[in-house]
Amino acid sequence: MLNKKILIDAFGADAPDLVIDGIAKAINAYSEVEIVAVGKREYIENRLIDQDFDRNRLEIIDAEEVVTNDDGPVESIRKKRNSSLYVGMTALKDRHDIGCMITAGNTGAVIAGSVLILGRETDNDRPTLVTLLPNDKGGITCLADCGANVDCKPHHLLKFAEYANDYAKGVLKIEEPKVALLSVGTEDKKGNMLTKETFKLLKESGLNFVGNMEAKTALSGDVDVIVADGFYGNVLLKSIEGTAKSVLMRMLKLLKKNAGEKDDFTFVNKAVKELLQQLDFNSMGGAILLGVKKPIIKAHGSANSDTVINTVNQAISIIKTKEIL
Amino acid sequence: MLNKKILIDAFGADAPDLVIDGIAKAINAYSEVEIVAVGKREYIENRLIDQDFDRNRLEIIDAEEVVTNDDGPVESIRKKRNSSLYVGMTALKDRHDIGCMITAGNTGAVIAGSVLILGRETDNDRPTLVTLLPNDKGGITCLADCGANVDCKPHHLLKFAEYANDYAKGVLKIEEPKVALLSVGTEDKKGNMLTKETFKLLKESGLNFVGNMEAKTALSGDVDVIVADGFYGNVLLKSIEGTAKSVLMRMLKLLKKNAGEKDDFTFVNKAVKELLQQLDFNSMGGAILLGVKKPIIKAHGSANSDTVINTVNQAISIIKTKEIL
Repeated sequence: MLNKKILIDAFGADAPDLVIDGIAKAINAYSEVEIVAVGKREYIENRLIDQDFDRNRLEIIDAEEVVTNDDGPVESIRKKRNSSLYVGMTALKDRHDIGCMITAGNTGAVIAGSVLILGRETDNDRPTLVTLLPNDKGGITCLADCGANVDCKPHHLLKFAEYANDYAKGVLKIEEPKVALLSVGTEDKKGNMLTKETFKLLKESGLNFVGNMEAKTALSGDVDVIVADGFYGNVLLKSIEGTAKSVLMRMLKLLKKNAGEKDDFTFVNKAVKELLQQLDFNSMGGAILLGVKKPIIKAHGSANSDTVINTVNQAISIIKTKEIL
Repeated sequence: MLNKKILIDAFGADAPDLVIDGIAKAINAYSEVEIVAVGKREYIENRLIDQDFDRNRLEIIDAEEVVTNDDGPVESIRKKRNSSLYVGMTALKDRHDIGCMITAGNTGAVIAGSVLILGRETDNDRPTLVTLLPNDKGGITCLADCGANVDCKPHHLLKFAEYANDYAKGVLKIEEPKVALLSVGTEDKKGNMLTKETFKLLKESGLNFVGNMEAKTALSGDVDVIVADGFYGNVLLKSIEGTAKSVLMRMLKLLKKNAGEKDDFTFVNKAVKELLQQLDFNSMGGAILLGVKKPIIKAHGSANSDTVINTVNQAISIIKTKEIL
């Protein structure tokens, strides 16, 4: 058995039913795992009543309220004290037997809650949301920050680099992660005021800093950690999502247009399915919130039972890494 | 005949030969066009010696030097006074019979030169480089700024919006261009300090401002003008380029993997070819530098003879628009 339990916010996602199903599936999939589910107890119990899994490895903490995407980040933490998010984070903070939390909840509320409830790792810094990009080499590239922080200072970006570097090294087992700074050109002097100052800090950081990079190589797998202010990181992340969708749709349309009557589409459909899997950021698990006192995995709002299985797998790696340290 | 000539920097691109060939082809393609080519006269004349086109519509201005991508922006303007870029821009400034310049030269040098030689349209503002994105609806979305300006102030972004709006209206014939501000969410309050202030200015600008937009819808065609600081705009543009390439490569690999022996790849190859054409930003012409006293079309360094034909077509539209105004 793992030495820490994994806490799951059962009511963060758009479809709690799928998350609850995923909890049972994850317990079946990973025999070393104990899960603490937070949310409406009766609802969870009813949903799981006919499902076949080891109930001894599930604990339920009751929380009757739900934070929605319409709730303001700070207000939801201040006012919804009985939400699955608030109750879950409080348990994460107070209980030594819980190592990691998984939530698909309102991103702003998750970040605000992590600071207000859990607390920052060090006082002057900000937590960062690290997204895992599936790169062209079949590996993972960490993007920090992907949207939690805007108007950053150079020392914030330095810290994001350090957090993401630790994650790449410890959890992803990349020996000497290559760290690059997102800029408008690869030359040392390219950039804006923020990146030029950050460049100097990264140069002296002791990290394996490989210099500036352009957004066009973000998926190449040439680097392991991309450091950016959350505004640029968010533009990069969302533009990758949108462009991938756009190109795939255009390609499909053109394939259909150009196919003759005798052409068999079976292999095209198979290829599209595999590509969607490759590009599915959820399959990598969730984004990781680092820089607060315990790690939180932030899954997409559209999380389903597979997402739960994937993020639990990610949480296992994180807990195992902490065990060694 | 058009009432203004089009000036082409024959030595800005990586392959001047292809640009020179393109000049002859453009003269053949557009019977209303007169071109002024700037560069090494003897070289240009030799290259064109056997080509069949109307020589009466070509003027050559001699310029023996070439600005390369290794030259610093300002230094290249200060020191290479006999470069095709410098001589070309000086002619653009001084000669009333020239309406527009096309160059595939060093972007930094083109922007520096446009300010130092041509001069800004209004003193307090910055010129902006507007990229034309081929959107999912088959139309064009203008992205301003795509990399000429970093560390912008809100009033700069307002001006970029106005320049791009004028272009969309005048040259692209879009009646009431929808103008959106690139941000990290669609809600009015989402953004960083720069975009929040800019939001207010755009709201009061009299433009058809539709609010904040996210990078994931940049290619959707939902808006006609995307306004951004050049740092974010550059991240967006390059990420679109890189992601499109990455997705296409992955798709092709998967199609090949999944195809059986009897599957015919002809329609796949056709579809890929069409997709590459759709996504080829050069086919839309070049980026347009607005906010200086005369418009400059900045083509990609990899410009070939088709690029020349496309950018000349774009220049014709620009000159015709100015004729009406």
